[in-house]
Amino acid sequence: MTDGTRTQAAPAHVPHETTVAIIGAGPAGLLLARLLHQADIASVVLESRDRAYAEHRQRAGMLEQTTVDVLRGCGAGERMDREGLVHDGIELRFAGRAHHIDFPSLADGRRVTIYAQTEIVKDLISLHLAELQDTSPLLFDAEVHTVDGIAAGQEADSAEHRTVFSSPTTQPAVRYSYGGEERVLHCDFVVGCDGFHGVSRAALPASVARTYEREYPHSWLGVLADAPPSCEELIYAHSPRGFALHSMRSPTVSRLYLQVPNGTDPDDWPDERIWDELDTRFALASDPNWRLNRGAITSKAVLPMRSSVTEPMQHGRLFLAGDAAHIVPPTGAKGLNLAVADVAVLADAFARHQASGDTDALETYSARRLRSVWRAEHFSYFMTTTLHNAPDQSPFDTHLQLAQLERIASSRTAAAELAENYAGLALLDSTGDGAAGPRPFS
Amino acid sequence: MTDGTRTQAAPAHVPHETTVAIIGAGPAGLLLARLLHQADIASVVLESRDRAYAEHRQRAGMLEQTTVDVLRGCGAGERMDREGLVHDGIELRFAGRAHHIDFPSLADGRRVTIYAQTEIVKDLISLHLAELQDTSPLLFDAEVHTVDGIAAGQEADSAEHRTVFSSPTTQPAVRYSYGGEERVLHCDFVVGCDGFHGVSRAALPASVARTYEREYPHSWLGVLADAPPSCEELIYAHSPRGFALHSMRSPTVSRLYLQVPNGTDPDDWPDERIWDELDTRFALASDPNWRLNRGAITSKAVLPMRSSVTEPMQHGRLFLAGDAAHIVPPTGAKGLNLAVADVAVLADAFARHQASGDTDALETYSARRLRSVWRAEHFSYFMTTTLHNAPDQSPFDTHLQLAQLERIASSRTAAAELAENYAGLALLDSTGDGAAGPRPFS
Repeated sequence: MTDGTRTQAAPAHVPHETTVAIIGAGPAGLLLARLLHQADIASVVLESRDRAYAEHRQRAGMLEQTTVDVLRGCGAGERMDREGLVHDGIELRFAGRAHHIDFPSLADGRRVTIYAQTEIVKDLISLHLAELQDTSPLLFDAEVHTVDGIAAGQEADSAEHRTVFSSPTTQPAVRYSYGGEERVLHCDFVVGCDGFHGVSRAALPASVARTYEREYPHSWLGVLADAPPSCEELIYAHSPRGFALHSMRSPTVSRLYLQVPNGTDPDDWPDERIWDELDTRFALASDPNWRLNRGAITSKAVLPMRSSVTEPMQHGRLFLAGDAAHIVPPTGAKGLNLAVADVAVLADAFARHQASGDTDALETYSARRLRSVWRAEHFSYFMTTTLHNAPDQSPFDTHLQLAQLERIASSRTAAAELAENYAGLALLDSTGDGAAGPRPFS
Repeated sequence: MTDGTRTQAAPAHVPHETTVAIIGAGPAGLLLARLLHQADIASVVLESRDRAYAEHRQRAGMLEQTTVDVLRGCGAGERMDREGLVHDGIELRFAGRAHHIDFPSLADGRRVTIYAQTEIVKDLISLHLAELQDTSPLLFDAEVHTVDGIAAGQEADSAEHRTVFSSPTTQPAVRYSYGGEERVLHCDFVVGCDGFHGVSRAALPASVARTYEREYPHSWLGVLADAPPSCEELIYAHSPRGFALHSMRSPTVSRLYLQVPNGTDPDDWPDERIWDELDTRFALASDPNWRLNRGAITSKAVLPMRSSVTEPMQHGRLFLAGDAAHIVPPTGAKGLNLAVADVAVLADAFARHQASGDTDALETYSARRLRSVWRAEHFSYFMTTTLHNAPDQSPFDTHLQLAQLERIASSRTAAAELAENYAGLALLDSTGDGAAGPRPFS
């Protein structure tokens, strides 16, 4: 399958140089190439896996309005607009009760769209191969080994990257293997969209970069089931037995999650046990007969949960975006949205540089994005710790969780704080509603 | 001093029976006696300490509007209205910056009043001795040993207290020593306002009551200084060296706190070290010359921090109020306000029972108060963990704190959530702004 897919996607020629080398063909890398193309900036996308693998990675599927706008704005929203499910809110369940959080009324008209990341990747790959392959080749099975020349001389180990752009004494070189050959791609800039374990993050000098991390003491058992969603909305459930989440991929496919201990073997969870446990955690006192719609479980996997932020998100001519720069636990559904915001801001900065030579937007990329990143990290932490049952949790801690949930269910202010964060803060000022003043692109 | 004070306050006679026996003459017990008197309900207040001790316990001093209203409503607000300092908000300091949180604009016009608990106690004692001593004697140096007869027969160990009122097969008896004699006070009801370590909480059967607790890994070093406040408002400061709080007792007396490790000896903190450390933690990047006003330090003490809730807050004919039922860390300034709300709700329930024989309000006292209590516990936990530097805190955790503070400083919604909780939620529906519907007294 690998060879077949690669052959099908192979570009007419393999360039030796480009403006922006993009490492990784997840949603961040693919979208960046498309946005750069719109600004007449050439790029090459190098993806270590094959096309089938890239298209089938199961990830999140909750799109903030800003994410929807960016995808639409670059012509990648057609199928999303046709097949995506627009949601007005979420349901919180705790203490056997259900509470609807209405986003439009609480968060200035915002809604969210349910459309799986894996579908976005398929759309972007398909569009790329059809439209961009000549100017911005996308190479599968292209494994990057090293990224060199992102900063010159004494700048290389300095946290001060501002001078790099004004003294171009070096040019980045990306060494990779492709089609059985070792190759070099020369470029003006490198953008790492290759995840936490990719070569890009590792290419930041240790003297410059710092990674902040937090592990969570639980995982998610995620399943896909051929069953219609049991409710029109996502349901976030707090229960004495742990967290559960009801989501969906389409009108006929449910996506369901159960909090499980770290190290859980999915084989210990036969389908029947999963359904019974889900029903127990979603139980409603007001409707004891409420049950999930059941169906064949077609996928079952355990997902660990952690948080990570690498600072700065840039050094010299290297920029990080998406999971290469930050990981969030999935509870806040922020991972994909952060990645899209990263590349939208970065593409705009490249366009400004290309148009006028102005480097300011590129130089401030990391500082501007980190405010939004830490906001999302905090919100994800808040959702995770409010809804999950930690192994060392005391009865007092459980009461605190319930008091927080009770407050959200009974106070417009507390519900709005959740809704604004969940439905998404504005791209240009993602730390608030403007009280601190917007931070323009440059 | 003890004898002189007791003689001065001794009532004309020591009654053998009353309607409500109140254990403890802190603000909760004293205020309850006054509210009951307004409803023509007789009580006796038994305080184990002498008057001077009761009048000089240093405690909090931030009064919510509801607390101010209750004190005014029972004629105990004259000096508070004259000497109390009305504040429109607080200042948050973090990352070297200052942010004003404006309560009236964020929390529906609410303000807070700075007036020390110790002054409230002095006012209430003075009024009590002048006006109430004949009908509702207040006895100092009256140490309670046991509380008996709060529930009869099989009810005694049952969590079901509803039947107690309709089958008065027993009558409570409070055994105490006073003036060198062992005495018994027979009564219809007992209210424990004698704190966490008092006999009242211990009188709840173990089969009925459960106490939830949380310890915090730090304490406060609190000082009183003869120095004018350095700022018109309270300042809550987050710093890499730990939390600091600037408060005041009057226009000439500052009240200042420093986070210190548990077990700190105040003698390790000479005055000069305290002032220097306070200045370091309150440092402003925008005004490097900002310093606290210094003056003679007249009091220095280390205060541990913990949370505790006892459920239920009643059993049979015994009711708990204030610290006897719940402890909050002082960061949210909720302790005194919770105690006042407890006795206001309880006095109203006694008045309804007295007027019509209706026991519903008395029976639901605990359930109604616990919603507010857990709200306050959560807010106090939130303020404490957002502002303090825990010994095991990771750099990631510190970033989360700063992200939360940044959000409060830049979002009206997040600031309103803090302001509403800090300035005080309504007494009748203290879990929110009404979305869940008010919970009437009965």
